[in-house]
Amino acid sequence: MATHVLAIDIGGTKILTALVSSAGDVRARRLIETPNRGVEAVLDVITSSTAQVLAESGMRKEQILAAGVDAPGPLDPREGVVFEAPNLVGWRNVPLGRLLAERLALPVFVEHDATAAALGEWWIGAGRGVHDLIYLTVSTGIGGGIIIGDRLVHGVSGTAGEVGHMTIDVDGPACPCGRSTGCLEALASGTAIARMAREALAAGMRTTLLEMAGGDPAAIGAHHVASGARAGDPVAVEIFTRAATYLGVGVANLLNLFNPERVIIGGGVSKVGDLLFGPVRRVATARAFERPGRDVEILPAALGDDVGAVGAAAVALQRSGIALR
Amino acid sequence: MATHVLAIDIGGTKILTALVSSAGDVRARRLIETPNRGVEAVLDVITSSTAQVLAESGMRKEQILAAGVDAPGPLDPREGVVFEAPNLVGWRNVPLGRLLAERLALPVFVEHDATAAALGEWWIGAGRGVHDLIYLTVSTGIGGGIIIGDRLVHGVSGTAGEVGHMTIDVDGPACPCGRSTGCLEALASGTAIARMAREALAAGMRTTLLEMAGGDPAAIGAHHVASGARAGDPVAVEIFTRAATYLGVGVANLLNLFNPERVIIGGGVSKVGDLLFGPVRRVATARAFERPGRDVEILPAALGDDVGAVGAAAVALQRSGIALR
Repeated sequence: MATHVLAIDIGGTKILTALVSSAGDVRARRLIETPNRGVEAVLDVITSSTAQVLAESGMRKEQILAAGVDAPGPLDPREGVVFEAPNLVGWRNVPLGRLLAERLALPVFVEHDATAAALGEWWIGAGRGVHDLIYLTVSTGIGGGIIIGDRLVHGVSGTAGEVGHMTIDVDGPACPCGRSTGCLEALASGTAIARMAREALAAGMRTTLLEMAGGDPAAIGAHHVASGARAGDPVAVEIFTRAATYLGVGVANLLNLFNPERVIIGGGVSKVGDLLFGPVRRVATARAFERPGRDVEILPAALGDDVGAVGAAAVALQRSGIALR
Repeated sequence: MATHVLAIDIGGTKILTALVSSAGDVRARRLIETPNRGVEAVLDVITSSTAQVLAESGMRKEQILAAGVDAPGPLDPREGVVFEAPNLVGWRNVPLGRLLAERLALPVFVEHDATAAALGEWWIGAGRGVHDLIYLTVSTGIGGGIIIGDRLVHGVSGTAGEVGHMTIDVDGPACPCGRSTGCLEALASGTAIARMAREALAAGMRTTLLEMAGGDPAAIGAHHVASGARAGDPVAVEIFTRAATYLGVGVANLLNLFNPERVIIGGGVSKVGDLLFGPVRRVATARAFERPGRDVEILPAALGDDVGAVGAAAVALQRSGIALR
């Protein structure tokens, strides 16, 4: 019988609990709104969801090898401690791994969400068969994960992989991280795209974006800019191209540093497709050295909404000593 | 008896050939000007220097395990092919590893010079005892090497580690690499420091630098700016601080990406000491996330002029299957 693991993805708005096989098949899943009442309430959701996915799949807890947990960072993946989680109320130095292991009576492995996603894509997604890859997720912010020689790069304190907090324009806008300027996240994230749209409106540019957002400039999101760009609104196209160009500059840096076989881009903003990937590929390969530019494939993420479950499952399996390849 | 290897460092101006023990002791060395007459002339120098260091040390060729070669890149370390070497006349797709193996009748392992230096520092230099480190060499250009989990990061085509070609100011000056703008090398290398000095003179700033360079602005080098800064010339101090600040921004990027235990900075420009390391440490830890900034040591390289020989020896030993730790 195949090994199964529990995969848990703790997000700012939803908590996913799933049962995943050692082949990466999601057997049962439960998606619940994240309660905004501290750590215990989150643990309660996970505990009851676990009972439900077990019941639904007809499996007993004894048949589950371990649990993998994706959490927002910064966190220590070795100790399973979440230092802080801006989108989760009351989370500060939470020993999530230990607390969940007590609740579930299972070995629990905690990983930064974007890092787990990188491992999931490497396992059965757009990075299948590749040894060295960089994964970027571009949504509200920009996160990522780095795999070298089939292993996640964690660094000495477990925080490696912050591709969104690479400065590419030192005189650029302040970054939401509060520590630097002109980070990739400040220039190419969904938040940055929405900011550029509001700036274009404030500068009096003619665009359909305001109408799309119901007349309220503050309500404009990156998805409006993506829709506008697909419909041919020139302001929206220009904004998307600018963000994609910055992303290409960041990817060029990663090509020169890592010379990876693949760069995989996921997250909500990436769903716009060629409007993003066209400029990213063009700029990244033009700016990087010839060979790393030639030898890389820059691909969209393949796992879609399953990335949380598959990433957490990959973490649980690999850290339990199961070879994923 | 200890194992010995031949260590060869091919530079644009000098070729070093040395005999190094498996403990990293340099037993004999020969330093010859690089002949500017193509590949064969360089091979001739290495062959005769090898005979001389063997004779001097009283060893026979049969006692030598292998040869490690540092060469300027871009090159393929696995195949031992140097694609091009801007400072070596007539070098284009040179199968250096194969040619030298025929001449020396030894296994030959070729490595990019800055990457070999990273391995040397990791072995018996400022990176001793550490598993994850980033090495930067700041001289005419900026190169580097990345070690994760005690292994050099090579990437899929062997070009990883180009820390000098990370864009940190996308609207900055064109980089000597000819492919991008505002690379670290365009902002913080010896060449960039000299350019900033010439710009300060052209802007009519009062400084001792012109006098130090014998009255010829074109003759100003980074070493003049370093001497001027140490002597308290305010223009020179300002230029060095600016370059060090850019270097700090680049190091912050590396801390967020790799979360390394150490960052080691070598090369001619690093010899200026605290004038460089002060701002680099301050800027890097202020801009990086708290934990990677707190958990890193940013140190000067320790091997000095031996880095070429020690790095090449480390490459020869490790790739011959000898555990260096």
